[in-house]
Amino acid sequence: MANTYDFGLVGLGVMGRNFILNVADNGFTAFGNDLDEEKVNALIKEGGEPDKVNASTDAKIFVEALSKPRKIMLLVPAGKIVDAVIENLLPLLDEGDIIIDGGNSFYTDTDRREAYLKDKGLNFFGAGVSGGAKGARRGPSIMPGGSREAYQHVKPIFEAVSAKYEGEPCVAYLGPKSAGNYVKMVHNGIEYGLMQLTSEIYNLLKKAGGLSNEELHQTFAAWNESRLQSFLVEITSEILAQKDDLTDGDLVDMILDKAKQKGTGKWTSQNAMDLGIPVPTIDIAVSMREISALKEERVEADELYDRPTPENVVKASLVAKAEEALYFAFIMAYAQGMHQLADASKEYGYELDLGEIAKIWRAGCIIRAALLADITEAFKADDTLPNLLLSPAFVEKVQGTVNATRELVAYGATNGIPLPGLSNSLTYFDAYTSSRLPLNLIQGQRDYFGSHTYERIDREGIFHTEWKD
Amino acid sequence: MANTYDFGLVGLGVMGRNFILNVADNGFTAFGNDLDEEKVNALIKEGGEPDKVNASTDAKIFVEALSKPRKIMLLVPAGKIVDAVIENLLPLLDEGDIIIDGGNSFYTDTDRREAYLKDKGLNFFGAGVSGGAKGARRGPSIMPGGSREAYQHVKPIFEAVSAKYEGEPCVAYLGPKSAGNYVKMVHNGIEYGLMQLTSEIYNLLKKAGGLSNEELHQTFAAWNESRLQSFLVEITSEILAQKDDLTDGDLVDMILDKAKQKGTGKWTSQNAMDLGIPVPTIDIAVSMREISALKEERVEADELYDRPTPENVVKASLVAKAEEALYFAFIMAYAQGMHQLADASKEYGYELDLGEIAKIWRAGCIIRAALLADITEAFKADDTLPNLLLSPAFVEKVQGTVNATRELVAYGATNGIPLPGLSNSLTYFDAYTSSRLPLNLIQGQRDYFGSHTYERIDREGIFHTEWKD
Repeated sequence: MANTYDFGLVGLGVMGRNFILNVADNGFTAFGNDLDEEKVNALIKEGGEPDKVNASTDAKIFVEALSKPRKIMLLVPAGKIVDAVIENLLPLLDEGDIIIDGGNSFYTDTDRREAYLKDKGLNFFGAGVSGGAKGARRGPSIMPGGSREAYQHVKPIFEAVSAKYEGEPCVAYLGPKSAGNYVKMVHNGIEYGLMQLTSEIYNLLKKAGGLSNEELHQTFAAWNESRLQSFLVEITSEILAQKDDLTDGDLVDMILDKAKQKGTGKWTSQNAMDLGIPVPTIDIAVSMREISALKEERVEADELYDRPTPENVVKASLVAKAEEALYFAFIMAYAQGMHQLADASKEYGYELDLGEIAKIWRAGCIIRAALLADITEAFKADDTLPNLLLSPAFVEKVQGTVNATRELVAYGATNGIPLPGLSNSLTYFDAYTSSRLPLNLIQGQRDYFGSHTYERIDREGIFHTEWKD
Repeated sequence: MANTYDFGLVGLGVMGRNFILNVADNGFTAFGNDLDEEKVNALIKEGGEPDKVNASTDAKIFVEALSKPRKIMLLVPAGKIVDAVIENLLPLLDEGDIIIDGGNSFYTDTDRREAYLKDKGLNFFGAGVSGGAKGARRGPSIMPGGSREAYQHVKPIFEAVSAKYEGEPCVAYLGPKSAGNYVKMVHNGIEYGLMQLTSEIYNLLKKAGGLSNEELHQTFAAWNESRLQSFLVEITSEILAQKDDLTDGDLVDMILDKAKQKGTGKWTSQNAMDLGIPVPTIDIAVSMREISALKEERVEADELYDRPTPENVVKASLVAKAEEALYFAFIMAYAQGMHQLADASKEYGYELDLGEIAKIWRAGCIIRAALLADITEAFKADDTLPNLLLSPAFVEKVQGTVNATRELVAYGATNGIPLPGLSNSLTYFDAYTSSRLPLNLIQGQRDYFGSHTYERIDREGIFHTEWKD
């Protein structure tokens, strides 16, 4: 039994168990490890023949069961546990072995671990895995970064287990160091944006159009057959159809409106600010989760202020405009995320291929969407594209949907229905496409109070004015 | 001459020279230090009698000239230079001496330096100073944090040199550790918000109302005599009146629309995200500076997309609405910053008194405004106020100006004039005052794809649904 299993996995929670069963389904033998004996036994039971899927609570048995170079994936919570698992494995491993962190580790942690293990002759991969528990079982999108040579050993397994889009695997070597975790972080930032957008469109249709949950379900289901086809639109339609087990009503109405977060959206926004890249659709999605958490203050504030009664809108026309606006804003969320990736690639030396990234997001992951096929094409056509909005193929898509977005943002502002993601997407578009913005005044103010100087539109140089007092 | 001067200052740039002359004007003797001999000589020349104002390039002469406990302020660029100056002074100082960092140091750097110097028996203050070069000369707002006991030695000098609001000095002991730098950071975040807001209102009046620079100057000047009275409105009116020396036109039209930033606004947004406090008016101000920097891309994008021709609006009515909207959005920017301070106070143990902070911002600093007198009152009336919007005194101010804001945001969205700060301020208000937000759907999505669970509105507990496939 020594050194025969193709793939090892530490952390046999739902994700880990599903991932290992997926590996086995694809003809590779796999060995699991977890401190929890129940989880180990559950996997052995579900795995069937032990020469195909096996597991142990003992790290030594686990490591000895794997063929060399060992390919060991960790699916454990990000943070100190990753370091603890690595330290535990270290004395048992041989030069050339490969550790793959499949969690949402912060990219600088991955850089630190990769350098530390390289010194010991080991390969370390940060590999973002998206698709949730079901994706892990049936085919996730996998975003690995690390040593290109070492990736060759992992490649056949990852390509086999990953989701497929028209036969093409949703995994690719993305770049050195923490490229994989970084790309997954931005993936999650875009995810925050898309989730915020679907939630506010749901609210708008309900408040302004009076759509019932059943009508909302139908609407999102129909959209999922159109250019809006995407995992998040699909599950929104299903969530809206879900009956509540505990009452007679629909489940969605019983869920508390306090959204939690685990940090990847926040990291995306914070890092975009460090890079100087604007991602306002993602920023506001983070803010809205924060505001949602202030439930008690919101209830108190609601009592204090009057709100307009939303003017009723004809359902069919509202639904048509909402479809356009959601499409428009989805494009803005992807454009911002891709822009951040392009800049991070230069800043951190990731050598990212944006077309390849969009390609592996077309299936398996949470932000998979019909749009990603178009985004893949746009970056394949021009891999130096600074921003999706500058792609000729996107001009028509955006121009054709911006007017409906304008109408809805105006409606939301007038009628007191917050559309934060939509309005920040529109603002982003209007500002990004303005050759002249009023920030000349801001430069004037900065020079006035801080002598920070300014540039001019008509000549080169740095200027300062002795402002009158 | 040994040990006689009341106050020492390292860094004789414009700010430092002005600050020291201000100290001398108020009857204290002061000694300056800078490596640059020209700056030392300039101060000596401008200072008049050398037994009142003196300076040296020699750190030993400088330190020996100061009375004990020595009070030494640093006005040098934030970062490594602060550490270098401290190391340079260290061997010359005596137990109990006080070093005051007057720059925009990041708050964790201040915590580190304070702990390091405490071990050596020295007191370290992070003291934000706002007011620019002119404020330093005539009276800035000063935000010191550190040891309460040591502050007693500095207090008479800071109270004398600071700006006065109706006779009250714009300085107060704010709290332990980096409280002073933290408060100054958030001050600057609010400043970013207010600057963005004035710039977009300027643009709206110009594009929608066709106001000339002269009319804009008059408008902002009139506003500065009203409830909008504030330093930034005042200097905006003056900037709009400034003629260009190099052409026949107005200077504001010749300034390039690429706004720079030095990081304090970005830090405010990033740290607010760590705390989980929404500050979308500040976030979008940071984003707009970033978008402004992408000038070449903006010019290219502008060519690709059509934009609505702004519908003309009657000037008088537009100006009246703009005044209301600017007032509304100013309130939102302060509300967000104060909210962040309240939370940071708990998180970092600063024991901040928000009423006291608003009080010392009423004069001297860049965000000084008539509104701060009202904000001071609101927090003096209830020092546990979680958010300014919950203050009874603010309900009327906000309710009376929100409708004009709604109209203008709707106008901007419809007509393609970006009003990012205004729309994020409105979104913030509409979301914060909504007892129910659609983030129930987001919790449903999170449970669907990640089994992240949710809470319910009708019973306690944590729930998970086995969503259909």
